[in-house]
Formats: sequence, C-alpha cells, structure tokens
Amino acid sequence: MTRFALIYEFDGTPYQGLQRQKHGPSVQQAIEDALHAITGEDAVLHSSGRTDAGVHAIAMRSHVDLETELTPFRLMGAINAHLRPQPIAVNLCEIVPEDWHARFSCTGRKYLYRIVNRRAPLALAKNRAWQVAPQLDIEAMREAAKSLIGEHDFTTFRSVKCQAKDPVKTLDRLDVAQTDGPYGPEIHIHAEARSFLHHQVRSMVGCLKFVGAGTWEVERVAQALAARDRQQLGLNAPPHGLYFVAALYPEGGG
Amino acid sequence: MTRFALIYEFDGTPYQGLQRQKHGPSVQQAIEDALHAITGEDAVLHSSGRTDAGVHAIAMRSHVDLETELTPFRLMGAINAHLRPQPIAVNLCEIVPEDWHARFSCTGRKYLYRIVNRRAPLALAKNRAWQVAPQLDIEAMREAAKSLIGEHDFTTFRSVKCQAKDPVKTLDRLDVAQTDGPYGPEIHIHAEARSFLHHQVRSMVGCLKFVGAGTWEVERVAQALAARDRQQLGLNAPPHGLYFVAALYPEGGG
Repeated sequence: MTRFALIYEFDGTPYQGLQRQKHGPSVQQAIEDALHAITGEDAVLHSSGRTDAGVHAIAMRSHVDLETELTPFRLMGAINAHLRPQPIAVNLCEIVPEDWHARFSCTGRKYLYRIVNRRAPLALAKNRAWQVAPQLDIEAMREAAKSLIGEHDFTTFRSVKCQAKDPVKTLDRLDVAQTDGPYGPEIHIHAEARSFLHHQVRSMVGCLKFVGAGTWEVERVAQALAARDRQQLGLNAPPHGLYFVAALYPEGGG
Repeated sequence: MTRFALIYEFDGTPYQGLQRQKHGPSVQQAIEDALHAITGEDAVLHSSGRTDAGVHAIAMRSHVDLETELTPFRLMGAINAHLRPQPIAVNLCEIVPEDWHARFSCTGRKYLYRIVNRRAPLALAKNRAWQVAPQLDIEAMREAAKSLIGEHDFTTFRSVKCQAKDPVKTLDRLDVAQTDGPYGPEIHIHAEARSFLHHQVRSMVGCLKFVGAGTWEVERVAQALAARDRQQLGLNAPPHGLYFVAALYPEGGG
C-alpha cells in the first residue's frame, strides 16, 4: 500500500462541493471515479478541507491509499487524462509516509475571497468573483476585519449545519487588499487559520461587504462577534468568489 | 442623433468573433440586438478592433449613433440588462462628438496574451489562457521579442485572410513578463501598436513559444521576420489566451 498526496485545482461551479454527496456531482467522486478507472480499486480520498457548492480551489490537498504500483508522475497524468473535460486538474502528486494525513496533519488553511467592485456584471470573471455594485470603503472593511483576528467564539459566523464541536477558533489573518486582477481592479480578502467553521469565511466577508457599503458601521462587526448569535449575521457572501488557496503542514511535509 | 461610445468586456468563447458573421453568433450582433430591443433602431456598431473567434476583450471600444434620447447611464444599464446572461458587459458609456470614430480616431491598440506554463490542464483558467507544458525560457523569449519591435514588414506574421493594404506596421511594445495570476504564476506577453495585421499577435506569440521551448533558436524569429514569408511562421498561438486590452485615443478622448 502506498499513500499518495495530491495537490489539485478545481472550478467549483458544476459541483455540489468537494465532499461526496448523495445527490449531485462532487469533486471527490470525480477523482475517486478516475482512480477506480485507473487501478480498479475503491480508494477513498481524504482532504484537508471541505468546500461548499460553487466554491473553488487553487491548491486543495488530499491523500489516497493505493495497492496498485504506479509512479506519482504516471498517476498524476492518468488522473488528469481520466478527469478530462471536467474542470479539475492535478498539479502535484507525491508519495508520503503512511502516518501523514491530509486532514489531521494539516496545521493551517488559507482562503481567498475575490470581489469586483463595479456596476457592470462580470463577463470574463463570471463565477470567479463576487460583483458588488455599491462603492466599497476599503479602509472601513480593513478596520472591521481587525476585530475578527485572534481567538474568538465565532458562533455568529457559523452555519446552522456546522458540525464542529467547538465554535472557538483562532483567526490568524484577515486582510483586505486592493489588487490588479487579470481584467481590472479587484478586492482580495485573505483569510488564514488552523481551521474554520462551516461558512465562516463567507459569513465574515458578507459582514465586511456591509461595512464597505456603509450598511453597517465598522463597530457592528465586533458587536456581532461578541453577541455569539447567528441572528446578528449580515449575510453570507456567495460561494463563487471563494477559493481554497492552500493547506499548510509542518515543515512543508506532504 | 447622438453618438455614444461604449467600453465593454467580453468572453470570446461562445462567439465567432467581435465582427458580425453570416454564420454563428458575434459580439457585434449581440450588442446591436440589445440596442434594437431598447430603441427600435437598427443601429450599427463601429469598433476600434476586430477579434477572432475565441479571443476576449477587457476593454473594447465602439461607438453607435442613436436617435432615441437616453442618458449614457440608462443606456449602459439597459444594454447590460438585455445582454444578460451573455458574457458581454458594458463598463462605460458616454456621449462623444459626431466626428469621433471608434476605429478611425483610434491611435493605438493594446493586447495581452496569457500563458500558463505547466503540465496540468487548466481548470480555473480554462479558455482564459494557453496552457504550455514544456518549460519556457523567458529570457530567450524576451530576447527574441526585441527583434520584432519597431517598423517592419510583418508579412510572415500575417493571416492569408488579412485585408490590410500594407504589411508594414510599427510595433511599439512586445514585453514578456512573469507575473502572478489569480491562480498561480503566468507569462504575460504585452503587445502595443497603432494597428496590427490579422493574426499578428497570435503569430508572434506562437514563434516566441517555439523559442521559449527550445524548438527555435532566438535568432530564428528575426530571420522569419526578414524572410517576409508566411511559410516561415512557427505556429499561431490559440485564440483563447488573447485579450484586446485597450484602444488609445488622442488626449484620452472618447
């Protein structure tokens, strides 16, 4: 048995999410189907993160155990060939120790949220960013974001379906940056933590958008956090602006 | 009669090109159909550039004459509403003098070509960049690009269908840059000239790719140019990596 770690990119638009679902296509099923076609084995993919329907990944990290003897290079090529034309692409495949686990060894997760602040709908970045028409005050968003950094009970920013035992998480980074996208200016929100609650990033971005648009005062984000009450939430930002950017491991292992 | 100038973005994937075609959908027809639905007029769109099937635009510039009295703001909103869900988005609409012409007043055109240099297929940037597997030598590409800058007879880099009277053009800029794309590193080739021959940018990029991959020596690009012979061409880069970035006008007018 060999444990292979994979790093892959996907466009979340046509999927119900990364995780295998009873109804509708998932990224996990697409990759497991490809592995079955290649090896005949019923291998199970273990991943560093979950993603909702429509959420993308730039570098998702997963592992799988296979009996079939294959070089990582050949496995990567075979998975990509079988996945075509689905929008999932394996960028790296390597052999890892049997005690390395994509989910349990992971010590950090990075997300990116892309906003295009303009009136016109998105043509080139359709399904790749959130188009927000009211002019956003970046400084106010940045100020509000600061109140979320650190260790907090994030109950306000948690989906009712969230299965985490503990709503206390440590948010290491929540930056709001103006940047040049390939098609024009964008606002990028970078979030980093050991782990996140279900919907946490989209909930935080939704509240920051309220602040940016002037719907909320800057202080209201801290108040919503302190309330530990889902009813205090502004809105969930839509899934198509969100990207799982990277999973971090000690010493860069795996 | 009022002359309106438009700046708009489009995803070229579903179109036969910007220009109206007998067979298949075009960006021009989509916009003219929207204008007809709004005003009842059979207005004709005049554009600063042409684009091939699959080529994108970040900021195409066109003009149209309308009898109907509308503010530019309302016209822009109405066009975008009628175009939905087509991947064309008007970002700016303004009234210009009647002697201002999107094509004939234009004094410069800028193009961008995006390459993603990796083995894995593209998931997130599918139809938005050219995926090139062999590792490209950027320095060699940059060196070869220099030989194309300036005034030359670009017959080698011209489509057999090109209708320009004169194959002599002045290329003001042809940069090869490594840059961070939204999903990872990319190679961006920036081209700028008063005007280009049909297929010129894609032909130049195709030859630069040959140089980058080591298929061609750096010098071969200058030799191909000097030969003024289409048979000397390496290959045309595919359309989906190409973007019409901007049309330039004197004093930024229009």
